[in-house]
Amino acid sequence: MNAPGLSKNKLKYLRALRQKKYRQKYDKFIVEGDKIAREFLLQQRYGIEWIIALPHWVETHQKLLQVHFNKILTVSEAELQQISLLHTPNQVLLVADRFSWSLDPERLGRGLSLYLDGIRDPGNLGTIIRIADWFGLDYIFCSPDCVEEYMPKVVQSAMGALLRVPVLQRELAELRALQPHLPICGTVLDGDNVFEQPLPKAALLVVGNESRGVSAAVREQLTQRLRIPAHLGGGAESLNAAVATGIFCAQFRHRPRTQ
Amino acid sequence: MNAPGLSKNKLKYLRALRQKKYRQKYDKFIVEGDKIAREFLLQQRYGIEWIIALPHWVETHQKLLQVHFNKILTVSEAELQQISLLHTPNQVLLVADRFSWSLDPERLGRGLSLYLDGIRDPGNLGTIIRIADWFGLDYIFCSPDCVEEYMPKVVQSAMGALLRVPVLQRELAELRALQPHLPICGTVLDGDNVFEQPLPKAALLVVGNESRGVSAAVREQLTQRLRIPAHLGGGAESLNAAVATGIFCAQFRHRPRTQ
Repeated sequence: MNAPGLSKNKLKYLRALRQKKYRQKYDKFIVEGDKIAREFLLQQRYGIEWIIALPHWVETHQKLLQVHFNKILTVSEAELQQISLLHTPNQVLLVADRFSWSLDPERLGRGLSLYLDGIRDPGNLGTIIRIADWFGLDYIFCSPDCVEEYMPKVVQSAMGALLRVPVLQRELAELRALQPHLPICGTVLDGDNVFEQPLPKAALLVVGNESRGVSAAVREQLTQRLRIPAHLGGGAESLNAAVATGIFCAQFRHRPRTQ
Repeated sequence: MNAPGLSKNKLKYLRALRQKKYRQKYDKFIVEGDKIAREFLLQQRYGIEWIIALPHWVETHQKLLQVHFNKILTVSEAELQQISLLHTPNQVLLVADRFSWSLDPERLGRGLSLYLDGIRDPGNLGTIIRIADWFGLDYIFCSPDCVEEYMPKVVQSAMGALLRVPVLQRELAELRALQPHLPICGTVLDGDNVFEQPLPKAALLVVGNESRGVSAAVREQLTQRLRIPAHLGGGAESLNAAVATGIFCAQFRHRPRTQ
């Protein structure tokens, strides 16, 4: 288990993975932190290229590392500091293979999925992946202008949910072609009160961009226009995109159905 | 309007306000950004000590600045950079007086309020203040171990909601002494499904800490133990604290009541 530390080339490679273009070029991404690293090693959904860890972390996780012994790089705290993306570097960091989720049109048609129309904040995307995991949604689709799901801040805030929720980049038109009758429900300012409307069991829920909301092109394709009403007399301009997503998902999943 | 720029002492003072102890010592906090600064100047809830802005911002907001002409410090972009807390410094920054909200026991007793039991993440606190604003809650009470509401990241993410939602630091026992019959509802892992339980109109909703949840001391004081159920078979460990707060508030505010 006494693998060599970091060569200059490896250091360069690891630091390059902070950038989207190199994550795409090498088809890899970084997972940092004790708990999330253990989950990724246990679940084995994503291929692992390197496990970069402090000696004591390697010592205490021998069993988890059994099948990975040739991928371990034991590093010093100073070395970890050089690659870590966190203010307080953690004990372990993985380089993992990006994963292409497959799309089953039938599951799409009978399930509840999200369509993210230009979510830009990595923390919001991570939180939304956790929401989808919590409520057992079937898919998260990202429009091409969404923040990349393998960005380190997304991975951090999604936590283990990235192992369970299929996240795919798709245009709304592609999904409509697969399931022309699937209701497409989204929030617009002049929509109907989501707490009072009958809601379908299977649907695609559209979440708009943090500042401009649902784009004009997507709005035209909505089959149900909804809103989360603000309290009368309140002055709030908007709810955070992830909070609104959580309220929406809760309504679709848990509201006693009248029909 | 050609006020002098920043003296060394003023620069030192402004930079000190990044720290909680100096915010408390001087009873001030910092509000940064064009939109939020304009809201604070318009609403006049918080006293303003200094308005530090780029020349063109001062030029274009003469009307808003009329009553504040003696508080304006026109600075260069390089000077603003030295005090700004943002990666990309904005055009304006205010030094505002902290504000002590008063507590009306009657409003507490007939309203819907939040009790935050150890919220540590400033982004979460800001987002929760926005949620309270959106749903027209009456008060937000922070336990003494919550993150400070005047921390710059809280102010940024709360946006204008800090002007409308009373945020007070209180122990739960103090509130119970004021309103002994007010229901205290919180989430615990083994609580009842919030989507199926009858919910009171007036209540204090407890939100637990991001990692440990509701503390043991507060748990004992809950009169209703609830949970947001995860989807069967899902692996998610938790919802983000702000998202859970949003779902909770939506249930209490908008669920058709059966009794």
